[in-house]
Order: sequence, then structure tokens, then C-alpha cells
Amino acid sequence: MAKLLILSRHADNYRRLLETADLPELEIVTAMDTTEAEAVGLDCEIVLGEPKLVQPILMKLNNLRWAQSMYAGVEQFLDPSLRRDYVLTNARNVFGGLMSEYVFGYLLNHERRIFERYRAQREHRWDSSTTGMLRGKTIGLLGVGSIGAVIAKTAKHFEMTVHGYTRSSEDCSDVDAYYHGNDLLAFANNLDYLVSVLPNTSETHRIVDASLLGALPPRAIFINVGRGGAVDESALIGALESKQIAGAVLDVFDQEPLPKEHPFWSAPNLLMTFHTSAPSLPEDIVRIFRENYLRYLRGEELKYKVVFERGY
Amino acid sequence: MAKLLILSRHADNYRRLLETADLPELEIVTAMDTTEAEAVGLDCEIVLGEPKLVQPILMKLNNLRWAQSMYAGVEQFLDPSLRRDYVLTNARNVFGGLMSEYVFGYLLNHERRIFERYRAQREHRWDSSTTGMLRGKTIGLLGVGSIGAVIAKTAKHFEMTVHGYTRSSEDCSDVDAYYHGNDLLAFANNLDYLVSVLPNTSETHRIVDASLLGALPPRAIFINVGRGGAVDESALIGALESKQIAGAVLDVFDQEPLPKEHPFWSAPNLLMTFHTSAPSLPEDIVRIFRENYLRYLRGEELKYKVVFERGY
Repeated sequence: MAKLLILSRHADNYRRLLETADLPELEIVTAMDTTEAEAVGLDCEIVLGEPKLVQPILMKLNNLRWAQSMYAGVEQFLDPSLRRDYVLTNARNVFGGLMSEYVFGYLLNHERRIFERYRAQREHRWDSSTTGMLRGKTIGLLGVGSIGAVIAKTAKHFEMTVHGYTRSSEDCSDVDAYYHGNDLLAFANNLDYLVSVLPNTSETHRIVDASLLGALPPRAIFINVGRGGAVDESALIGALESKQIAGAVLDVFDQEPLPKEHPFWSAPNLLMTFHTSAPSLPEDIVRIFRENYLRYLRGEELKYKVVFERGY
Repeated sequence: MAKLLILSRHADNYRRLLETADLPELEIVTAMDTTEAEAVGLDCEIVLGEPKLVQPILMKLNNLRWAQSMYAGVEQFLDPSLRRDYVLTNARNVFGGLMSEYVFGYLLNHERRIFERYRAQREHRWDSSTTGMLRGKTIGLLGVGSIGAVIAKTAKHFEMTVHGYTRSSEDCSDVDAYYHGNDLLAFANNLDYLVSVLPNTSETHRIVDASLLGALPPRAIFINVGRGGAVDESALIGALESKQIAGAVLDVFDQEPLPKEHPFWSAPNLLMTFHTSAPSLPEDIVRIFRENYLRYLRGEELKYKVVFERGY
């Protein structure tokens, strides 16, 4: 019998879903916060949880063998001072569709001038000026993992050209042109949209800086659905204020929630959402956990293993 | 030598594109309005034009053998009092992608609550509530021609269920369930989105009426990118005001431009655009014309022929 601690604000929902998933040899305890977890779950062998809730008790889980993150981002587990004597797996292959919906919602909002049309409507003004379209535009993906690949596929569906910047991989057939290493500025050149899906690692830190933003054409829109750490926020505000780029859409930030006095709140041509581009859906996460738990029982290697040194 | 009259506000652009298309045995004259057309083109054998500009001179084109409409909608040519002794072709297979961009721009705007998020941003409010998603939702297409088929394909890309209401055809494999004839209300039942791409014909006239709107669930959004004539506008206003449906997005209207005093301007939960969902792009239209002109020269049957009795 393996003891599982579910540590999430939605722990009850997870328990219900896991109980119907019919997993053998599993004892389940739940906690909605760290304090509760300390009371019921410090002896667990497996933890399924939200990273920021698990982190404070990570060093106290004496029997821990496996931690399954409910999110894709696992930066809370990566500090070198933390233990690495367990298997960490994250959620993958489930956020791509939702992030793609988000990205294309905002791309189409921009092309079809949905805000402007609404303004015309409120002014009782028949505005039959032609709008833009995605067809024929170029999107650049910073990072082409499982999420980037879905965005690339949607972009091809809308007849866009897709450029991809990756460390080395070139395994997504929907990318028309790949860029690596020092080709970052060449990659940025001539993009209509730059979308970052990068995690926050030492290699991605502030990769979107003044020089990258300066290499984008003035018509470009920057979208960040990865992690705030990949962006130099001051440089982005500068690029927006000087109209070096046409706009930005941000779902993630260096500090979340965004501080009340942050200049982003009133920066021009910036649309913000609040780390909601791809909610972690319990149905999806339970499917991942179930698949991995059956492997765990059989002593097989788990899927979606995080490489601590790489950061994802 | 065949004489072609180009009759369009963008006639110069069309002439330039046609001249580079290298069409043999063609004399081109251009006119930007009906008066100009009467001066230079009444003896043309072929007319390529905007329907509303061509209609006033249609009966005066004594040598007319073929009219190529720049638009999909050709209601201006259908009145039984007008001549039918020529071949009428319209623009097809070019608007689907643009209409799909429009429809999914507004669907994603609704699901991802883009207006609400912007309101939160203006209030400096971190709103991390979860939004909706297209995945798993059901879209119903009123009409599954070449445009509906592209919308269906986009819907499947976003993992939606697709229902289609057609006269009889069932040839789009992206439609999960077809409905015909008297099954209109069953078709409407349980849709998240109802999208009309119907032309304005005697059979489609006011098909979206109080009973169809009443059969939709209260969460449903109605989108019209076809023709205004397919909608009973009073019934739609009633359905919006009584919250019988959650909202509507309209690009087409009974009367265009929409009269200043029309109740749509201030109806609740209604977003309007101004017959701009799929602009007719000269590059696309010239490609159609070129293909058809080469057939015309060879004496072959033209593509995209309008059946006058059917109306499209």
C-alpha cells in the first residue's frame, strides 16, 4: 500500500476523481494547505500537488519517492539547496490546447480589431474599414516543446508561417524555419507575433530583453504565456512606450500577483491576464497521475520526468 | 478579343492584377461606379464586379455572356424580373478561412472573457478566476457549404463537437451530426454556439426566428456571418433582452448600413461588426477570375456557377 498525499486547494475534487479512477494499492490523504499536510501527510510516499504548496514541506517528507506536480512549471522544486533524491514529474501534453486557445484568442482580437469595433458600435458608427487577418502572417515561437507544438499547429491551420527558436530540437513538423543559439535576433527579425512559452531557467532568464525587442519590427506583438522570468520587464515597458513594438499580451510576470504599483498596469498597448492562460484541470492531471501511477506500480520509468539540472 | 468591364471601387487594383495575370485575348475597361460603367463598358461581353454596382446596368449590357461576382452573395442578381440569359458565377472557396478567423476570434473572445479581463486590468485588479474554453463545446452550423466546412474544420482543431443543419448534403467529414428539414429545433437543442453562414434565399428567409432562438439553451451565443435576411431581427432582440440566449455577434443585417435608430445599436450582450467578416481580396478574386476565364476561352463550363432558382 502506497500512501498518497494530495495537496491542493481542490484536493476534494482530486480525491473524488482518483477514487473513481480505480487505482490499486493506494491510500489517499488530502490537504488543502501546508498546515493540513503536516498533520496528515508527512509520511507519504507519493505527493500530487501544487508546487507552491508542496515546497514548504518538501524537506520533511521522509518517505517521499515521487512528486507529481499539478502544473507544468516546477521552479519551486529546482533550488539547488532542495533535495533531489526523489522522482519529480510535471504535467505535460495537457496545456497546449488551452494555451493555443488563449494565444489565438488574443491574436485574432488584434487582427480583427475587436476592441475597436466595439468602440464603433458604442458610438453607433458603421465602421466598414477592412481588418487584418492571420493568414500570411509570421509567428515566432520562443520554445517549441509540447505547448509550442500545439500553437504551431494552430498557426498552420490559420495559414501562418511559423518560426521556432529552440535549444537544439527540430522535431515539430509545423515549424517552417528553426533558429538556435546566436540566431536569436535573426529569429526576431520580421515576425508579426513573438510568443514565449519558455519556462524559467537560468538559460531562459531575461532572454526577452532590449536587444531582442529591438530586433522585432514595429508592427510586432509580444505574447508571454511561459514564465515572467524570461522577460526583462523594464525593457518591455520601454519598447511599448517608445512604440518600438505595437503591443504585448502578458499572462505571466516576475512577481505574481502583479504588485499594485507596477508600471505594467498602465503601460500603453498592453493587455494583461492573470496567470490564467491554461488552467490546470483536475480531469487532465488525474489522467496523467493514473498513467504514471500504473507505471510506478510496475516499477517502470515514469513519464514527464523533470531533469533538475535542465529545469523542466 | 473579349471585352471585360471591371466595375469596382478598387477597379485600378483589379486591372493591375489582371494585367500581370497574362490573360490572352482580353480587352479590359474599368469603372469605379455605374455612371463610369455606362460611359465605357455597356458593350462588354464579361463583367467582373461588385453586385450592387453591376445591378443598375445589368439590363443594358447587350453583349453580356458572363458575370463574375466579386462577392459570395449575389442577391442583387436574383430578382425574377432581371435577365437570366447569361452565366453568373460568384466567389467561392476564398472566404472560409477569413470567416473562420472572424468566428473563432469572437468565440475565443467569449470563452476567454477578453473584455472582462481588460476591465480588471483597468481597475488594477488581479482577476485569476478561471475562464471557459472551446474544447468540449458544441457548435451548430446553419449551412455547411464551402464556408461552413472551413469553420467545421477549425472547430475540430479546437476539439469541439460540430453539428450541421443542411438542406440534404452530408459531405463534410468534420461534422459530427447532421440535421435536415424538420429537425431544426432538435439541431438547436444543446448548442453552445449557433453560427449562420446561410445566404439570403426564399428558403432561408427568417429561419432564425423566435422558435429557433427559443430552442437554444440560455448559455448559447448566436453568430451571423451569412446574410441578415436569415434572421428575424425583432425575435433576436427579444431573445437578447429576455436573456433567452447569452449573446449574439452579428456581421450582417437586414438593412446595411444599419439605420441609426435601429434597436441593435443598444441591445444587451450583442457585439456588432459591419459586414467585414470576410473581405473580398482582389488577389483571391483575380485567381478565381483567371481560372474561369481560361475555361471560358476553351468553351468549358465555368466553375462556381450560381443556380438562379436556388439563389447561390
